[in-house]
Amino acid sequence: MNKEERTQVLADLVKINSVNGNELAVANYLHDLFARHGITATVWPFDGQRANLTAEIGAGEPILGITGHMDTVALGDEDRWDYPPLAATIVGDRLYGRGAADMKSGLAAQVIALIELHDTARFKGHVRFIATAGEEYGTPGANRLEVAGVAKDLSALVVGEPTGGNVIYAHSGSYNYRIVSTGQSVHSSEPERGRNALAPLIDFALAERKLFSDAQNDPYLGPLKHSVTIIRGGEQVNTIPDYAELWGNVRPTMAFDNDRVTDRLQATVNRLNQRDANHLILEVVHSWRPVASDPNSAFVKQALRASQQAFSAHPAHAKPTLGIIHGATDASVFVKHHHDLPVILLGADDWNLSHQVNEYTTLSSFTATVAAYKQLIQDYFA
Amino acid sequence: MNKEERTQVLADLVKINSVNGNELAVANYLHDLFARHGITATVWPFDGQRANLTAEIGAGEPILGITGHMDTVALGDEDRWDYPPLAATIVGDRLYGRGAADMKSGLAAQVIALIELHDTARFKGHVRFIATAGEEYGTPGANRLEVAGVAKDLSALVVGEPTGGNVIYAHSGSYNYRIVSTGQSVHSSEPERGRNALAPLIDFALAERKLFSDAQNDPYLGPLKHSVTIIRGGEQVNTIPDYAELWGNVRPTMAFDNDRVTDRLQATVNRLNQRDANHLILEVVHSWRPVASDPNSAFVKQALRASQQAFSAHPAHAKPTLGIIHGATDASVFVKHHHDLPVILLGADDWNLSHQVNEYTTLSSFTATVAAYKQLIQDYFA
Repeated sequence: MNKEERTQVLADLVKINSVNGNELAVANYLHDLFARHGITATVWPFDGQRANLTAEIGAGEPILGITGHMDTVALGDEDRWDYPPLAATIVGDRLYGRGAADMKSGLAAQVIALIELHDTARFKGHVRFIATAGEEYGTPGANRLEVAGVAKDLSALVVGEPTGGNVIYAHSGSYNYRIVSTGQSVHSSEPERGRNALAPLIDFALAERKLFSDAQNDPYLGPLKHSVTIIRGGEQVNTIPDYAELWGNVRPTMAFDNDRVTDRLQATVNRLNQRDANHLILEVVHSWRPVASDPNSAFVKQALRASQQAFSAHPAHAKPTLGIIHGATDASVFVKHHHDLPVILLGADDWNLSHQVNEYTTLSSFTATVAAYKQLIQDYFA
Repeated sequence: MNKEERTQVLADLVKINSVNGNELAVANYLHDLFARHGITATVWPFDGQRANLTAEIGAGEPILGITGHMDTVALGDEDRWDYPPLAATIVGDRLYGRGAADMKSGLAAQVIALIELHDTARFKGHVRFIATAGEEYGTPGANRLEVAGVAKDLSALVVGEPTGGNVIYAHSGSYNYRIVSTGQSVHSSEPERGRNALAPLIDFALAERKLFSDAQNDPYLGPLKHSVTIIRGGEQVNTIPDYAELWGNVRPTMAFDNDRVTDRLQATVNRLNQRDANHLILEVVHSWRPVASDPNSAFVKQALRASQQAFSAHPAHAKPTLGIIHGATDASVFVKHHHDLPVILLGADDWNLSHQVNEYTTLSSFTATVAAYKQLIQDYFA
């Protein structure tokens, strides 16, 4: 594609309103675009206007995965935008719009890289493109594809989230849990006749402070982060509450993963339930896994080299480096039954632009990211 | 008054809707009733349709106070009542209606006793009748009268709450407090950069468990009761909360009173604030005081004797005894600056009928209560 065609793909994607829950239009657009270049993509519709999409380039083993999400966060207050959030207005090097950075630029760059490699007809290797719905809330799209097995035979995975060309080789998971406590309500003048549902949650919250203190530091992500973030119990000051709940978040690492978090939480709940006839129930609300690649592996080195070379053509951008982040991505789902899948994040633009008013992508970093993907894929199969 | 006149007063009072906030109509009714018997009562209106009322019978020292509240709790679901809650329907010995037990029967019995004693023209002594607004929520009526000084020169106080003729010589106070915690919000992937507003409240809740363990048992009310009954903090599981609050209730006794409760709570908050840069603020929401009379005092003995004699004429009712309860009354306000004021609760019917659908008073206990009040007042000034 020439520069105008590439920019048109990006602008087309930004103009499609795909706020969480409306990804089918994006999937259909990508399906037709691939079709015009001789690539058969599969649209996986669900829940009305939602869909995932997958496409294969090449064949055989190993299989390199490359993934991006099609949804965006809400448009926000449109009056606060300098340019309409669905207009894809170009001003200088910037293309403005909701999802421009997170992550339609990355998604467009992935699609364009695959089409251009495929168009050359000299491409050797096997790339699986995975476009998901609902990454911004609850990852329903990635969950479905993971169950369908799209990640089970991958040898590595590239996630196109906005990293400014940096190669993110590890990120923590995110583990949300809820503990429901039931007791027996009585008037506060006779608390000894009831069971205060808050009491065992206070015990839990206290235990939680040291619950992971023996967790080994992750070599890349450091200490395990964990917090009690919500407690709700009681409605009337003169009534001993019979219901209370506590919510917490843990950021699992490869050194202390989601399964160990569950074991530790459940053991604590069991211990408290054996004491004082407490009634606590642990519910795992979301369990996104950590991902990590060895920063000294050939894959990470190839990615960094490809990105540095591509971005060096655009001196306005800083030289890409290696890094980690603490946010979770769709990759946290794809490693669910494939914990040691090497994963990197690599995409255009700064993550800090995501979710903001006046979100934009720079066309230069978009162009560099297309080049980086093409180089990385070629090197991976060289 | 004859039996029909007495019953008419009770029925008239029950028919006036005086759900918390509408006591002026009751006060005006009592004012006119007293006036017809040559007693000048004072209506103390406030907040539109609210009012207190006071009246004096006799003069000199000592002054015996006799008090009741004019408000009722809400009518509740009228479809669940067998008789309309404002109809004062009489079936056999029962008069049904909202407030029949709590406490228009006690209020009517007080007013009738005073009128009948006054009508004899032989009455010696000084009784102050105090009818209040809003006892069922927040005691705004009693608060105003206490500030106006109506309790400061009393030598004893009879509260006409429903006790089935039993003489309640002590009840706990009720002390509601709130602790507000402010912190600093950050994403849960970096909890160390914020301050979790829940954390110091968990510390407080833990400290609260043993905060009063050295409190001496009250000779009448036993150990101090105290509970944390509400905790609310956090809204999103991925966000460290910057606001949380905790509510608690304590039942102060004469052995560990409201002032000591405040001191103990404030010291704990101060200690936690010195640690870890917590920001806790203690707010005393309501502070109702305990009341107690020596069960061996002449006043309590007179009351028990008068009640036993009066109820002995109605063998369907159990013989009155001495007792304690854990609920607070308007008396908790009147002792605010008069901690050693002897107080008893004595009235018709069972407290368990209060606040229920199909609330009723028995006309026999109402009659006995009139007699008990008359006898007690005469004995007090004999």
